[in-house]
Amino acid sequence: MADQNPNTFPATLQTNTVEEGFDLAIMLSRLGVKKTQPNMKILRKLRPKYANDADSLTAASQVIALNFQTIAAANNYWRG
Amino acid sequence: MADQNPNTFPATLQTNTVEEGFDLAIMLSRLGVKKTQPNMKILRKLRPKYANDADSLTAASQVIALNFQTIAAANNYWRG
Amino acid sequence: MADQNPNTFPATLQTNTVEEGFDLAIMLSRLGVKKTQPNMKILRKLRPKYANDADSLTAASQVIALNFQTIAAANNYWRG
Amino acid sequence: MADQNPNTFPATLQTNTVEEGFDLAIMLSRLGVKKTQPNMKILRKLRPKYANDADSLTAASQVIALNFQTIAAANNYWRG
Amino acid sequence: MADQNPNTFPATLQTNTVEEGFDLAIMLSRLGVKKTQPNMKILRKLRPKYANDADSLTAASQVIALNFQTIAAANNYWRG
Amino acid sequence: MADQNPNTFPATLQTNTVEEGFDLAIMLSRLGVKKTQPNMKILRKLRPKYANDADSLTAASQVIALNFQTIAAANNYWRG
Repeated sequence: MADQNPNTFPATLQTNTVEEGFDLAIMLSRLGVKKTQPNMKILRKLRPKYANDADSLTAASQVIALNFQTIAAANNYWRG
Repeated sequence: MADQNPNTFPATLQTNTVEEGFDLAIMLSRLGVKKTQPNMKILRKLRPKYANDADSLTAASQVIALNFQTIAAANNYWRG
Repeated sequence: MADQNPNTFPATLQTNTVEEGFDLAIMLSRLGVKKTQPNMKILRKLRPKYANDADSLTAASQVIALNFQTIAAANNYWRG
Repeated sequence: MADQNPNTFPATLQTNTVEEGFDLAIMLSRLGVKKTQPNMKILRKLRPKYANDADSLTAASQVIALNFQTIAAANNYWRG
Repeated sequence: MADQNPNTFPATLQTNTVEEGFDLAIMLSRLGVKKTQPNMKILRKLRPKYANDADSLTAASQVIALNFQTIAAANNYWRG
Repeated sequence: MADQNPNTFPATLQTNTVEEGFDLAIMLSRLGVKKTQPNMKILRKLRPKYANDADSLTAASQVIALNFQTIAAANNYWRG
């Protein structure tokens, strides 16, 4: 899912599993970046620095946590 | 939606699709900036630096995630 | 609303429109600053630097997003 | 309320007005600092620098916004 | 509670008072640090710098605010 | 749980105890990092710096707090 087309927006926040929900949270976090800087060449150029910086990675994990809150609520926490 | 008139505030937080909800979250995030610094000339001058900085882009994605939480709740997560 | 008297606190979080709710979120965000630093002369002196820094503006937008979450919930998301 | 004794913890999160709720949010935000650094002499020494830094003030406003979310929910948003 | 054994995890998030709930929020915030860096010698060495930095203290207060949101909800805001 | 295989995603957010819920929050926070930077060699290289920096540890604790909010809600706060 990480490399999926950023232009394909999910039609729903519902997922079958917790893991798919987490992957969707990652996708939304990246979309937030891509919609702000749509130039993929620039994004690829920025990646090495930020993927090798612990604080940048923690910040990325924080955005994922926020989006996962939304998706978990949307799925009623997969309580089943 | 990204380039829409910042003075046109949405009358509702309800959207037809998840994607429109995400676009609205982006718009609110930008409105938060524009209401703090209404001078568009200055905002355009700031853009190159921040759109080329990975940490700035992650921070932008974080604000979008917070506004998306609000909009997703407003739409009852588009549970349909 | 942006320039209203910081000493006039709203009696309610309910607003008629989404836009008024967003303006109230901005007001609460500024109040958080003013209650920490009540000296308006100092606040005015700080403004030029922070209103010309993209990361400061994103941080301001983040606080607005948090307060907008509160106000949107208080208004039951203006579901009407 | 800003200068109240930090050792007097409120017995309840319920307040009569929105403004009192906001003041309580400020008090909890300061308590979070004081419980981490209880030495008031040090805290007073730190104040000048942080009260004159726009980004520090925005960060303080962010913590207040988080605590205000809690207190507003505790008061059912003073819907009355 | 601040100095309690970090290995004694609470069996419940329910507390008798608001103040105990706030203390629990502080404990969870510290646990988040200790689980990431379990070496107490290193943590003690880091303390002087961070306990004398206003921005570090605000960041600590922010984590406490987030955990207090969780604990307040768990206690139904001690509405009594 | 800290060293568990990052590829084993939990099938559920439900846990038996508060402590297991907190451990799951830590795991999700690390997953957010690992999904962004899957190269474990790089992650191990980054650890010494960030595990010895008070602000990095506070930021890690913040992400854990956000994920713990999700997990605590998923478990109805273990109200029992």
